[in-house]
Amino acid sequence: MDVARVLHANGGAKEITYAKNSSAQKQVLSLTKPFVEEALHDYFGGTHIPDKMVIADLGCSSGPNALIPASEIIDTVHGQCQKLGRRSPEFMVFLNDLPGNDFNDIFTSLQPDFFSKRREDEQCRVAGVPGSFYGRLFLSRSLHFVHSSSSLHWLSQIPSGLDAKNGPMQNKGNIYITKTSTKTVMNTYKQQFKTDFNLFLKSRAEEMVSGGRMLLTFMGRMFDDPTTKEGFNHHMEMIAQSLMNMVSEGIIPEEKVDCFNLPCYVACTEEVKDIVENEGSFVMNRLESMQVDVVDCEGDNVLLSRGERVARMVRAMLESILGYHFGMELMDDLFTRYVDVVNSYLQTANYKFTVFVLSLTRQ
Amino acid sequence: MDVARVLHANGGAKEITYAKNSSAQKQVLSLTKPFVEEALHDYFGGTHIPDKMVIADLGCSSGPNALIPASEIIDTVHGQCQKLGRRSPEFMVFLNDLPGNDFNDIFTSLQPDFFSKRREDEQCRVAGVPGSFYGRLFLSRSLHFVHSSSSLHWLSQIPSGLDAKNGPMQNKGNIYITKTSTKTVMNTYKQQFKTDFNLFLKSRAEEMVSGGRMLLTFMGRMFDDPTTKEGFNHHMEMIAQSLMNMVSEGIIPEEKVDCFNLPCYVACTEEVKDIVENEGSFVMNRLESMQVDVVDCEGDNVLLSRGERVARMVRAMLESILGYHFGMELMDDLFTRYVDVVNSYLQTANYKFTVFVLSLTRQ
Repeated sequence: MDVARVLHANGGAKEITYAKNSSAQKQVLSLTKPFVEEALHDYFGGTHIPDKMVIADLGCSSGPNALIPASEIIDTVHGQCQKLGRRSPEFMVFLNDLPGNDFNDIFTSLQPDFFSKRREDEQCRVAGVPGSFYGRLFLSRSLHFVHSSSSLHWLSQIPSGLDAKNGPMQNKGNIYITKTSTKTVMNTYKQQFKTDFNLFLKSRAEEMVSGGRMLLTFMGRMFDDPTTKEGFNHHMEMIAQSLMNMVSEGIIPEEKVDCFNLPCYVACTEEVKDIVENEGSFVMNRLESMQVDVVDCEGDNVLLSRGERVARMVRAMLESILGYHFGMELMDDLFTRYVDVVNSYLQTANYKFTVFVLSLTRQ
Repeated sequence: MDVARVLHANGGAKEITYAKNSSAQKQVLSLTKPFVEEALHDYFGGTHIPDKMVIADLGCSSGPNALIPASEIIDTVHGQCQKLGRRSPEFMVFLNDLPGNDFNDIFTSLQPDFFSKRREDEQCRVAGVPGSFYGRLFLSRSLHFVHSSSSLHWLSQIPSGLDAKNGPMQNKGNIYITKTSTKTVMNTYKQQFKTDFNLFLKSRAEEMVSGGRMLLTFMGRMFDDPTTKEGFNHHMEMIAQSLMNMVSEGIIPEEKVDCFNLPCYVACTEEVKDIVENEGSFVMNRLESMQVDVVDCEGDNVLLSRGERVARMVRAMLESILGYHFGMELMDDLFTRYVDVVNSYLQTANYKFTVFVLSLTRQ
């Protein structure tokens, strides 16, 4: 599976759009706002404000959240400049996501959602940059501030060896790491994350100016053991369980589940730390972990059951990948079953996902 | 009418797409290729090759032509560097068009149409920039080479005074300047072009580095008198005639035609020269005029009548504007009538449109 071609948040025209079901991502954004501000204040600590400031938001997605980080970064810099009695820099904002992202949606919403709220004296230019952030996207030494929220847990590919094409099927009956996964499966996932995250850092190291800041948030896990049941892996287990229900009714062939593994990985803090230190281009200012309750987030959908609320969010996130592999026409059925599985757990299901905040400075 | 919101070439999903009916634009591109090469050779005349080269293509549209100019510019620079025994610069390509343009189409075609044809040693980054080029789009002093093809004849708005909202109706029964248009109508059009083109030059002057080059092609006219019958104004007259046919049959109210004027202007060389000289930021290296036969261009549609071939091209270009004002549901009817009008002229209709090539250097 060519993940970079298949993966995208659900776009404009569909009913279960990411735009309408991305409150969890929005909550992550608002939780990480103070860290963005901290990074910017540090960056501008002295009087080190460039005339032109180039900002990149990586994995911006589409819908109402797409322009929030850029807006907040500009507002913060502007406020900082006012305090210092300085002119704001000219801003260039690069909004990046995979080529399948709905950039048309972002671009047509720029006027009401972004430019119309900017002040006369804030000169902002905006560009969309399609492509995988696991590789170069920008000119060398051109970025001052890099932001990425809720994206870096996506891998560049299904870990090699776990993709159906590349060998015997492993991790049968699962779509992610669980108690029954072998050590090989766990290591393969871990290795893919390491390769990808290292390439991400290396690419940004080339693109950022010395002293530039990067603020990353992405899903992680609390425990070192990846099989310890937490929010993310438990929900992936429930998706697998729903798929296996469909297998038992003959709706999906068993091999179809056996040969699928999600191109996602939730790392632990040690893994992240090691990769950053080994890559060596960045100073780590902060690595915090937070808990986000994905049910409480879904404020717009309060009349729905907990299962329905979680399902909307998870579906908006995973549908492009699951639908591509299992067939789009089966997604309604799959997520109806998933709602039942989630609701059957009621109190015991964990609705809290771990989110990492990683603040880096380019040396 | 908010032209910047309404105007766009017909996008991906429609049958009469710009993508399938833009051979005239493609011919313009191939006719102007030598001028692009000349400008680049001049720019790199010495050994003045920057490490990073930022290229902007303004009004790139979507479809198969969207990536041609950028590809050709990069190929030319690359060839030039090889001759000089130098490393090619890192390229950043900005593809600009109005926010309604189908950027998703461009971004998803980058991999087969653009990146896969680039050599390993050509480092290219690509971004889409939505917005009107009659205003700032890029950071100050950041562009080395600016290209725009078949776009600058579009005005930023219906000339003020000729828009229905802003006063009594003028230019009744016409949609552009004709023999029956008043001096006021002509001057209003001329003034709008002057304002727009001046703002275009002023914006680019701020965005381009000193010594940077700009190569512009756009529709113009041969004769100083804008009412002299040439390709463009004759065809706009035939569109008006088709609309008035529909008025006579009660399909369109007469006022609807009376209050519409096309946000387009084909200037003469003197007008262009004057604006460039008065703005003062650019040296004019070249202003050439060429004739493009829009019927011969339509190589893909050889089995169609001349009228049908012209109609496809004109429709792909004008449908968003005409459909917005008169109703999309009337466009089939309108262009069927237009085909009949064009075919009725047969030998006397002029299928040659005048195209200007303007080569400028930022002082």
